[in-house]
Amino acid sequence: MRIPLVLLSAIAAVALAQPPRPVRVVSPEVHPDHSVTFRYRAPAAQKVTVNREGGQPLEMRKDEGGVWSVTTPPLEPDMYGYTFNVDGVNVIDPVNPLMKPNLLNTSSMVAIPGNNPWDAADVPRGVLHHHFYRSGVVGDQRDFYVYTPPGYSKGKKYPVLYLLHGFSDDASGWTAAGHAHVILDNLLAQGKASPMLIVMTLGYGAPEILRGGFRDAALVKRNYDKYREALFTEVIPEVEKSYRVSRDRKDRAIAGLSMGGAESLYVGLNNLDRFAWVGSFSAGGLPGATPAEAFPSLDQSANGKLKLLWIACGKQDGLLQSNNKVDAELTQRGVKHEYVLTEGAHTWLVWRRNLAVFAPLLFR
Amino acid sequence: MRIPLVLLSAIAAVALAQPPRPVRVVSPEVHPDHSVTFRYRAPAAQKVTVNREGGQPLEMRKDEGGVWSVTTPPLEPDMYGYTFNVDGVNVIDPVNPLMKPNLLNTSSMVAIPGNNPWDAADVPRGVLHHHFYRSGVVGDQRDFYVYTPPGYSKGKKYPVLYLLHGFSDDASGWTAAGHAHVILDNLLAQGKASPMLIVMTLGYGAPEILRGGFRDAALVKRNYDKYREALFTEVIPEVEKSYRVSRDRKDRAIAGLSMGGAESLYVGLNNLDRFAWVGSFSAGGLPGATPAEAFPSLDQSANGKLKLLWIACGKQDGLLQSNNKVDAELTQRGVKHEYVLTEGAHTWLVWRRNLAVFAPLLFR
Repeated sequence: MRIPLVLLSAIAAVALAQPPRPVRVVSPEVHPDHSVTFRYRAPAAQKVTVNREGGQPLEMRKDEGGVWSVTTPPLEPDMYGYTFNVDGVNVIDPVNPLMKPNLLNTSSMVAIPGNNPWDAADVPRGVLHHHFYRSGVVGDQRDFYVYTPPGYSKGKKYPVLYLLHGFSDDASGWTAAGHAHVILDNLLAQGKASPMLIVMTLGYGAPEILRGGFRDAALVKRNYDKYREALFTEVIPEVEKSYRVSRDRKDRAIAGLSMGGAESLYVGLNNLDRFAWVGSFSAGGLPGATPAEAFPSLDQSANGKLKLLWIACGKQDGLLQSNNKVDAELTQRGVKHEYVLTEGAHTWLVWRRNLAVFAPLLFR
Repeated sequence: MRIPLVLLSAIAAVALAQPPRPVRVVSPEVHPDHSVTFRYRAPAAQKVTVNREGGQPLEMRKDEGGVWSVTTPPLEPDMYGYTFNVDGVNVIDPVNPLMKPNLLNTSSMVAIPGNNPWDAADVPRGVLHHHFYRSGVVGDQRDFYVYTPPGYSKGKKYPVLYLLHGFSDDASGWTAAGHAHVILDNLLAQGKASPMLIVMTLGYGAPEILRGGFRDAALVKRNYDKYREALFTEVIPEVEKSYRVSRDRKDRAIAGLSMGGAESLYVGLNNLDRFAWVGSFSAGGLPGATPAEAFPSLDQSANGKLKLLWIACGKQDGLLQSNNKVDAELTQRGVKHEYVLTEGAHTWLVWRRNLAVFAPLLFR
């Protein structure tokens, strides 16, 4: 069969646009029974494993074409981060465009669809607005995201949830990995949540903490204090200028995960003049030697101001003990709160579920 | 020196949140003279090279710690995609969070700051709005982005540039890799462009083309026809409902790169009732055996409708010949156009510059 010239030139065009590659590897492949086959082409590698969020590392086997693979047992429908470990080196899956961005450890992601709140459904969808600005407080170019719910329209004043990411995430974490916008779309479609805006900031008041970590107590405190200053003097004013939102403290919530959980407790409980709803998911890294030091003036008078103080932690989370201490400190001071222990470790599998439970409690 | 308990517990918290890793590799490292050191830890690898967008592959050398590295000569300030090739396998840089997303070949990216139009500067910044919807035309969940310029405010009706990505990109391509929003912010701050909205869609009317490529002429045509149908019946109506934009054809432009360039020519020149401004950067993959077939009814009458037909291609682009044919066909039919040949190949280095030159010509 003769190949028409048009097709030849089209093929040439594509070949020129992309360097020639070996036969394409498909990875990950989700099977009907929800098992997943991971594949990685590395003919010269000696050992390849796949490390899945919330799972144990699985050894992979190489075929004659140099493609390593392994198939998992059936998995619960969810979104799982994963990386390959190739002869001791962690790499993402080069043929999978779905990624979990992270400033220190980007990973790939596989989605096993179910009817979970984070699965996009045929419901009205909100819009994500990505804002960019120069922070005078921190001295850098930074960004934040604003979710507006379906039907966001003139006239109404919406309440706002400020939702904070964890250490090593960036401002996109709660949407890219957390699907916060999808969760809210679905909750709203089911009448399970009040329409609200969600503002997702960049959570570093001192970005050098990304290199320094939590070893330097002064750096930790500066990170949180500068974060608060940027939130109060830059982000909130911009949001309240640009969007139809209420400025009443009863219409402001703050919540976050891990470092963002600690920030939410620190910023929220020390500023009840601004927030009536506070949430913490798997918090870690509160400033001060004890939880008591983080909230020097917190006492029972908070109960008249707090609509909700909701603290969650996974039972398999390494930060469980420090969350237990926060719970005990709040109890000792007579500050009403909910302490929710769930299954799970320090992973997005827990935090997506946390948000799906927490958001319906807000602004009721 | 005794380490206070607070620090120990903070360290433990971080250690629990992140698995232990070897000494952190820094990559890429941009030096003051604009040379770049790339590093990749792979003690067991036999050969590692770095492939940089617009450059030749560079061999890397391994040190005693198993870290491969190479330093480039000084480079022009720009944003360069790159991947490592490790024993024949392309991987992204696992320690660099800056990525160029792509549905087939994600790569890492290194930015060498200069005073280029795509470098974020201390100027008023526009907002990127990310929309999600179910496409009835294509039958999938998809998205598009809308850039609104600084000062976007009630009352005024803005013109709109529909800006299309290339084959294997997704709707985020023109912002993540193209920095279209940054380019417009800077042009506007300098008074070099008219305030406009930019709408960046997902450019696949038949997403199976991602697997099939351009070998199947019917698939190529269906991809473009369905794209046009989704654009006309889903995206444009939503944009014109949700934003303060003009519905006059003189206030609508369509432009794109590579596959998106072909789509812009095909959709634009066949629908001059809707678009007065058409741009094509490094176009490839027009439907039909010749450019003549793609525009069966195009003739000199187009000159009364077209405000601008702007066609650009890099002199080192493998698609130069097919762009020459488009130029010749338009000339033969007496359709006025600009044909702009630049330095460069089929890369984002060319397309960012194309946009920075093209956008100032619009809506004047």
